[in-house]
Amino acid sequence: MREQALKLHKESQGKIKVESKVALNDATDLSLAYSPGVAEPCKDIFDDRQKVYDYTAKGNMVAVVSDGSAVLGLGNIGPEGALPVMEGKAVLFKSFAGVDAFPICLNTQDPEEIIKTVKYLEPTFGGINLEDIAAPNCFEIEERLKKELSIPVFHDDQHGTAIVTAAGLLNALKIVGKKMEDISVVANGAGAAGIAIIKLLLLMGVKEVIMCDSKGAIYEGRPYGMNPIKEEIARITNQRKAEGTLADVLAGADVFIGVSVAGSLTPDMVQSMNESPIIFAMANPIPEIMPEVAKEAGAAIIGTGRSDFPNQVNNVLAFPGIFRGALEVMATDINEEMKLAAVKAIAELIGEDELKPDYIIPSPFDPRVAPHVAALVAKAAMDTGIARKEINPEQIKTSMLAAVKI
Amino acid sequence: MREQALKLHKESQGKIKVESKVALNDATDLSLAYSPGVAEPCKDIFDDRQKVYDYTAKGNMVAVVSDGSAVLGLGNIGPEGALPVMEGKAVLFKSFAGVDAFPICLNTQDPEEIIKTVKYLEPTFGGINLEDIAAPNCFEIEERLKKELSIPVFHDDQHGTAIVTAAGLLNALKIVGKKMEDISVVANGAGAAGIAIIKLLLLMGVKEVIMCDSKGAIYEGRPYGMNPIKEEIARITNQRKAEGTLADVLAGADVFIGVSVAGSLTPDMVQSMNESPIIFAMANPIPEIMPEVAKEAGAAIIGTGRSDFPNQVNNVLAFPGIFRGALEVMATDINEEMKLAAVKAIAELIGEDELKPDYIIPSPFDPRVAPHVAALVAKAAMDTGIARKEINPEQIKTSMLAAVKI
Repeated sequence: MREQALKLHKESQGKIKVESKVALNDATDLSLAYSPGVAEPCKDIFDDRQKVYDYTAKGNMVAVVSDGSAVLGLGNIGPEGALPVMEGKAVLFKSFAGVDAFPICLNTQDPEEIIKTVKYLEPTFGGINLEDIAAPNCFEIEERLKKELSIPVFHDDQHGTAIVTAAGLLNALKIVGKKMEDISVVANGAGAAGIAIIKLLLLMGVKEVIMCDSKGAIYEGRPYGMNPIKEEIARITNQRKAEGTLADVLAGADVFIGVSVAGSLTPDMVQSMNESPIIFAMANPIPEIMPEVAKEAGAAIIGTGRSDFPNQVNNVLAFPGIFRGALEVMATDINEEMKLAAVKAIAELIGEDELKPDYIIPSPFDPRVAPHVAALVAKAAMDTGIARKEINPEQIKTSMLAAVKI
Repeated sequence: MREQALKLHKESQGKIKVESKVALNDATDLSLAYSPGVAEPCKDIFDDRQKVYDYTAKGNMVAVVSDGSAVLGLGNIGPEGALPVMEGKAVLFKSFAGVDAFPICLNTQDPEEIIKTVKYLEPTFGGINLEDIAAPNCFEIEERLKKELSIPVFHDDQHGTAIVTAAGLLNALKIVGKKMEDISVVANGAGAAGIAIIKLLLLMGVKEVIMCDSKGAIYEGRPYGMNPIKEEIARITNQRKAEGTLADVLAGADVFIGVSVAGSLTPDMVQSMNESPIIFAMANPIPEIMPEVAKEAGAAIIGTGRSDFPNQVNNVLAFPGIFRGALEVMATDINEEMKLAAVKAIAELIGEDELKPDYIIPSPFDPRVAPHVAALVAKAAMDTGIARKEINPEQIKTSMLAAVKI
């Protein structure tokens, strides 16, 4: 794997290139695409700034922005170290949804400076995908940019993972015959992804959620290991103020969601859960519990982050279609309704008759996913009044199915 | 022209796109280009930051940075208005020299903020092309960035124009049989391009230069219309402290260089010049004097900025090859020797036997230009010790001639 990956990156000298969409064969072409003809769209945009969406690539261009502070499982490896990941993300945007995306790896990890820089970059881009920025900075950066920019901003490590996990859970509950409002969920790992997942599940009607960090259950008034983020978690979860270790609070729960570390879920803990336990063990590369071990311990359904096991929670099911949908209707944001639409889109692609414990999440290579997500996300943007352009969602789907090559 | 230019921009929705350089057909491809394989180049770059040039697109990626403050002849039309020009520039980079270039239109015109933002952007890019930033901010921004970044920085409006003008003058002097050190030059227009031109000519051995602004000749101690930039001009030019109007100081001069306004050069003024006067009338779209008028008044050789007249001073002859040459050898700067190499490269492509008054500058579509410029610029970088990589210049030329399609 190592040698192959290095060879691929070296031979191609990176993974992205910038190409022209217009021919440049003679002086006439040059005079239209550049001086003097280019002055015409410039003047029109100066008169009406919205026309930048008509005459430039902005409307389909996403910045993949990182400060390199939390890259994959590698930690704070800096902006240069992060660049191969951001180029890879740009490749996924293009391959899965026809979205142009460009890596922006910033030489600062100061949240105020990152916010300001992204604001300065706004004219060129139609959307901002934040990536691999460490908590808690990532929360403030996303929140502020969502308020201060007029283009969609989306921190994929939070919401991408949350959306795909939620879609998997939606389908898993159909199989085990439980309802969102009746289940109790225990999440292990209070990082960016974990928090986004529990917030999304609360939005989807889950009533009982307990979140654990390395010190055990988080509850209001816990006298140790708290910070403003965990205080917010304590306020919105764990109404019964359960204390104790992960093992303590997991007993009797319906769902385990792990975004933590390898091996943190034992067979005993699975056995202590309610009947038909659902396990999302998403630590990478080694999950909280290996699927075969979880199954032996009685797990009904298991999802992981790995492509070599069934039910891979892979962000690529979400972000390409979400951005494409948002861009198609010139949405000013990616709001909660659009995220819920993405959850529904991913989940419903697996028909009731196809659903089974090993197939609750579509394959990343299912060509229907991004077009369906884009269509439903675009519709949600229009329905909630944040679209600046109307377009038939079916048309988005049709043109994507015709064009996208994955 | 207007309708055609708008149609071209609208139909293609801008002029650039981001494409993948790697295939993404199955789970194996995905695992090499993205997680988990992508961690390998990330780790290697974290261990040795220079390897970012091996494993990412950085080494061939130029940012075309503008604040939209001085766009074409349109003035301060802002970053969105400037975007079609910067996309066009990116298209030229790719079409003429195979360089990937990406438009960065910044939502600030504060020089300190621009400098800081470009520094934050450095990890992604192999070079910075500053574009359409108004004087005097452009001078400080370029100077500071050249000092503070370890990648080449080049303000094309200054140096691109200067290099092509100097190449034209070099050839024009061969025709009229004069030498650099003997001529007297009068430049009209003390903007970014004008100043860069006279500085380059001084570097090339011209002894007598007088620069005029709208108030006439600039000289040391002029009691009106001065600023720090013009004081510097006064220090390095006009040793005999000539005063008066453009017409006054042009009498007896060998060369007129106009980067000013339409109609500022009259036939009388041309007639007052030394024998075989050389005229560069580069105001756009209407030159300081029309070529046929200048010729009637006795001009020996005339260049303009327009493609429909002979001897077009077109920056596209310079910047694509200059950046390609600098990138090929991982130069840390674009220094004076590299600029002089570009002047020589452009000029010498026209053989002595081909030279004539209407052919002192190669056509923008001459496919030999960018490869020859790149080769000589790369060599100059190696010769002056600012290259971080050695490569045979002939090899650069050969591979470019084989690949570049214009």
